[in-house]
Amino acid sequence: MGFPNVQVHPKVTIEDAFWLNYKKLVAEQVIPYQWKALNDQLPDTAPSHAIENFRIAAGEAAGDYYGTVFQDSDVAKWLETVAYSLRSFKDPDLEAAADDVISIMGRAQAEDGYLNTYYMLVEADNRWTNLRDNHELYCAGHLIEAAVAYYETTGKRAFLGIVENYVELIRKTFGVENGKLQGYPGHPEIELALLRLFDATGKREHLELAVYFIEQRGQEPHYFDMEKEQRKSFHAPPTWNDEHTNFGLGYAYMQAHLPVRQQQEAVGHAVRAMYLYAAMAYLARRTNDTELQTVCDTLWEDVTNRKMYVTGGLGSAVNGEAFTDAYDLPNDSMYCETCASVGLVFWAKQMLLLSPDRKYADVLERALYNGTISGMDLDGKRFFYVNPLEVNAYQAGRKDQEHVKQERQKWFACACCPPNLARLIASIEDYAYTQTEAALYTHLYVAGSVQAMIGDKAVKLIQSHQYPWNGNISITVEGKGRFKLAFRIPGWCLGATASVNGEAAVIDDLVNGYLVLDRIWETGDRIELQLPISVMRVYSNSKIGMNQGQVALQRGPVVYCLEEVDNGKGLGSLRLPRESDITAAFEEDLLNGVVALEAKGWRVAETEELYQIDAPLLEPCRLRAIPYYAWCNRDDAGEMRVWIYEA
Amino acid sequence: MGFPNVQVHPKVTIEDAFWLNYKKLVAEQVIPYQWKALNDQLPDTAPSHAIENFRIAAGEAAGDYYGTVFQDSDVAKWLETVAYSLRSFKDPDLEAAADDVISIMGRAQAEDGYLNTYYMLVEADNRWTNLRDNHELYCAGHLIEAAVAYYETTGKRAFLGIVENYVELIRKTFGVENGKLQGYPGHPEIELALLRLFDATGKREHLELAVYFIEQRGQEPHYFDMEKEQRKSFHAPPTWNDEHTNFGLGYAYMQAHLPVRQQQEAVGHAVRAMYLYAAMAYLARRTNDTELQTVCDTLWEDVTNRKMYVTGGLGSAVNGEAFTDAYDLPNDSMYCETCASVGLVFWAKQMLLLSPDRKYADVLERALYNGTISGMDLDGKRFFYVNPLEVNAYQAGRKDQEHVKQERQKWFACACCPPNLARLIASIEDYAYTQTEAALYTHLYVAGSVQAMIGDKAVKLIQSHQYPWNGNISITVEGKGRFKLAFRIPGWCLGATASVNGEAAVIDDLVNGYLVLDRIWETGDRIELQLPISVMRVYSNSKIGMNQGQVALQRGPVVYCLEEVDNGKGLGSLRLPRESDITAAFEEDLLNGVVALEAKGWRVAETEELYQIDAPLLEPCRLRAIPYYAWCNRDDAGEMRVWIYEA
Repeated sequence: MGFPNVQVHPKVTIEDAFWLNYKKLVAEQVIPYQWKALNDQLPDTAPSHAIENFRIAAGEAAGDYYGTVFQDSDVAKWLETVAYSLRSFKDPDLEAAADDVISIMGRAQAEDGYLNTYYMLVEADNRWTNLRDNHELYCAGHLIEAAVAYYETTGKRAFLGIVENYVELIRKTFGVENGKLQGYPGHPEIELALLRLFDATGKREHLELAVYFIEQRGQEPHYFDMEKEQRKSFHAPPTWNDEHTNFGLGYAYMQAHLPVRQQQEAVGHAVRAMYLYAAMAYLARRTNDTELQTVCDTLWEDVTNRKMYVTGGLGSAVNGEAFTDAYDLPNDSMYCETCASVGLVFWAKQMLLLSPDRKYADVLERALYNGTISGMDLDGKRFFYVNPLEVNAYQAGRKDQEHVKQERQKWFACACCPPNLARLIASIEDYAYTQTEAALYTHLYVAGSVQAMIGDKAVKLIQSHQYPWNGNISITVEGKGRFKLAFRIPGWCLGATASVNGEAAVIDDLVNGYLVLDRIWETGDRIELQLPISVMRVYSNSKIGMNQGQVALQRGPVVYCLEEVDNGKGLGSLRLPRESDITAAFEEDLLNGVVALEAKGWRVAETEELYQIDAPLLEPCRLRAIPYYAWCNRDDAGEMRVWIYEA
Repeated sequence: MGFPNVQVHPKVTIEDAFWLNYKKLVAEQVIPYQWKALNDQLPDTAPSHAIENFRIAAGEAAGDYYGTVFQDSDVAKWLETVAYSLRSFKDPDLEAAADDVISIMGRAQAEDGYLNTYYMLVEADNRWTNLRDNHELYCAGHLIEAAVAYYETTGKRAFLGIVENYVELIRKTFGVENGKLQGYPGHPEIELALLRLFDATGKREHLELAVYFIEQRGQEPHYFDMEKEQRKSFHAPPTWNDEHTNFGLGYAYMQAHLPVRQQQEAVGHAVRAMYLYAAMAYLARRTNDTELQTVCDTLWEDVTNRKMYVTGGLGSAVNGEAFTDAYDLPNDSMYCETCASVGLVFWAKQMLLLSPDRKYADVLERALYNGTISGMDLDGKRFFYVNPLEVNAYQAGRKDQEHVKQERQKWFACACCPPNLARLIASIEDYAYTQTEAALYTHLYVAGSVQAMIGDKAVKLIQSHQYPWNGNISITVEGKGRFKLAFRIPGWCLGATASVNGEAAVIDDLVNGYLVLDRIWETGDRIELQLPISVMRVYSNSKIGMNQGQVALQRGPVVYCLEEVDNGKGLGSLRLPRESDITAAFEEDLLNGVVALEAKGWRVAETEELYQIDAPLLEPCRLRAIPYYAWCNRDDAGEMRVWIYEA
């Protein structure tokens, strides 16, 4: 294995109307709101107790542990979000609050470096005895990610020191060597966290521990079997998975059915899969491991071309919150956890870093503008855990769809999604660009600026546009000399044109979907991209049985939906004729400013009979669609539908 | 309450190609096959042990009880089937076998009349302590039905005596009087059985006990709550429902959420609902109870006009095997238990007896030709418990659709459906006609003859036709004098014509959907009905979201489906243009002889992408549909689909 240089992060400033608004929402609403949640200061919500657990562990509060076994991770994700947010929005009070939490963590940490409040307070003697179910290494991973982020933003080493000590303990505990546990986590997370830690510290042992956890996964005999046998020798509280069927999915549930290099299909719990695949791609890049890269590409193809919703949602079944078979994409009973789409963004970024190809960025963008941010309301105060593509009149009566909430919730007993989305939005700038030695890649059109060194050349690009509503992108270059600037021409975009200083650029010679401009640049050079953003009718592969005869509307990267508030009840009775013109208009006062779509359509006339022989009568109506991410932000809950029947 | 005369059953002989074949199948294959099953003589199937349980209870075999708590009912349903079958097919050996079983039952019966092998062998001290879950009265009901049927066919009173003794014990045990248990069964069945017993014995106490069980249902305080409290005072084995949420459906699961007269919507377990509603309609008729009749009609409307599959299937959710909300009719995850459609036939017949209206007979016929007999293969050896309307490529991967088998099974641990279907088919003649004082109603076109007394006139009708494949019905009358003959003009039938002795009859003056011929008849009079049977495109109400843009094919009463064996994989990718002619041809060698349908259609060309902007390309293809009831009778299991996308 070689260890290439640490990936250089371009320095990005966001001035984008769309994303700056979201970032401010996270800074001004979500972070304070989640802080209250973590401190149990929200009325009428499921309690969190997450900060209190650390206080109790530090001996600074009395009481019992409360929460899921992974409650610690909510604090970690909040700290990670704070770390990213502070990059854009200085906030000394917030930073002080974060420092406080970190110092409580430091005082809670055991002498030997261990830090998990569930085990410290509930099962003090049982550390590392149920890696399968109890998220111990998962929580460690989130602490590591938060510490790295906090260190990168603030330069403060306290948190990093805490997790380095913890990692040292983990390193002594786990490994293939005799006398160590040959275990690995039921829920992947620590793998990618350790890779981030390695990038921050440069310490080879951090990389090696990540390699160990990734490669050990799925080896036989299954560690989880041995661990289960071990548990019989002492008392441990029961878990949901004592029967250890993993919801009938076996070790595939946690992607531990096979060693990772033998995995060819995306299986099991979708969030776990995303975290694992992201770590595998990260590792492949950091070790130039083309075999592992191929595995990642095989899995990428399986996920994005057979198991992904048009919104970038993942997880077709509530059972195991998991992938099912190819093309099984039900719109009402699915899981589509916000965290899974967030995880898809993480993975997509790692794939882009491995190999710039717009197929990764197209998916990244799809998830970003749709299935991730749909998880939060426009006020940043209510959240979807599950993101349906269809809410209908009879869903509320189905016990098997009780996981599908028809309105966003204030908080969750299992509160993984809100802070996960927050940390993604707070760091949205990290997803816009990557660079290689010779080129700066622009993957996302996010207004603002980026500064990078390309080779020895300092470059700054300033993007200006109204994306995603408008595709006219102006880019001003600062810098001098020959280097490559690569701009993604989105896969959904037809008829893109480009010019540099008014001269048309050749656009039919894209490199993996990127317009690569290789020239001698001068400060003030101006690149204009015209990415025609028109309304597209999106059709499903014919193997997706449930979407046949239906069309989804997409404009640029934004997927649309019909809502009852605009279209009345019975969205399944609406028809969009294939020949209907669809008008698009920006409406400043609608949903924080969005482009809404309208078209002439038909509504099937109401009838009494359950079945009839006469073809349905159609009455003219006006269809109105809004961006999917913004659904359920007006009035009461009601029906919603992404896939619209054609006439 | 008055007690009108016992309903007179017309005497029917079946010579119908379609149904005689099914009846023979039951007599020659199903009854012997199920006899083997009940005696554990089938290789590679779930054991039954049902006869052995009776032997053990009789002290004539050693061993432990085995099976579900309602295992006795399988024997009862077999005996009931035998009773019906012996009417058409004399079989002394079979009758002797039945007599043997009955005599074992007699020897197994307790001194005080009690007869339930589960409680006698497993919980001897716990009789009547878990009416909610343990099917004790349900099993009693099936014994009663069997005994009545056996008595009616053979004139032998032994079995009837056994159940009369048992009923006497039940009557002493249950009732509103002080000192009795105020309970009623979790699973309705005994109610309609007691009404049949009353019709056979004329004993008022049998009617009164039925009234008690029906009226007591859903009264507060809930008996099941009290019973549950009682159970705390002794040890009882755990049941699936100890938490007593009834799958989260509460008492609605067993239609005990409200007194029956207050019930307005069909809820809960579909089979339980059918048995209860059938009993309510039966009672309404026997006691001229118009209030109860109105309740039945309200429930009928709710079931058949909001919650019924086009196949006559019932039960939209596996959870509780239950009804869900109106218009929620998913085609792949539903339950559609064979028993529920069988129960719908029972209920429909009671509604017809209450008030002849073709709306009941149309549903009866729909269930008969589709969702009931689909439960059995054409050899009578394999059975569906669950009757899906769609089997697709990804269903096998869904844990939440494990209840949907893609092939019929040899037997079931819970073997309610095969004998239930067998007793229906064996008694199919009981569903073809009803009579009032003044008229003989023909509801079903089943070739053969019927003999009845209309008032004081002896009448015989002889039907001759090739129904359901052809709608030209010839009827010869034997009898003399004035009486009314009423013939159902099916709701699906457009353009029916009729003649008597070659003279056109007026057909636009139907009475509740029946052509009523009121005249002075002579033996040899000949009635010709032309019921045009053409292929119909059936459309769903626009509120059934999952069926929009799709069409089902129906020809006469027979609903069709596409199968993979005829149409290749990917049935969701097929399109039937609205303007396509559909040809229908009888194919003698296909599936025991059926009319198959063919049409020019389209198949969406296979593509690689999961989503695409180009409208799907269509390639011409030939669609071939076969009757739904006959699906999965050729080759290996494969896809199947009732609802076909239109182009």
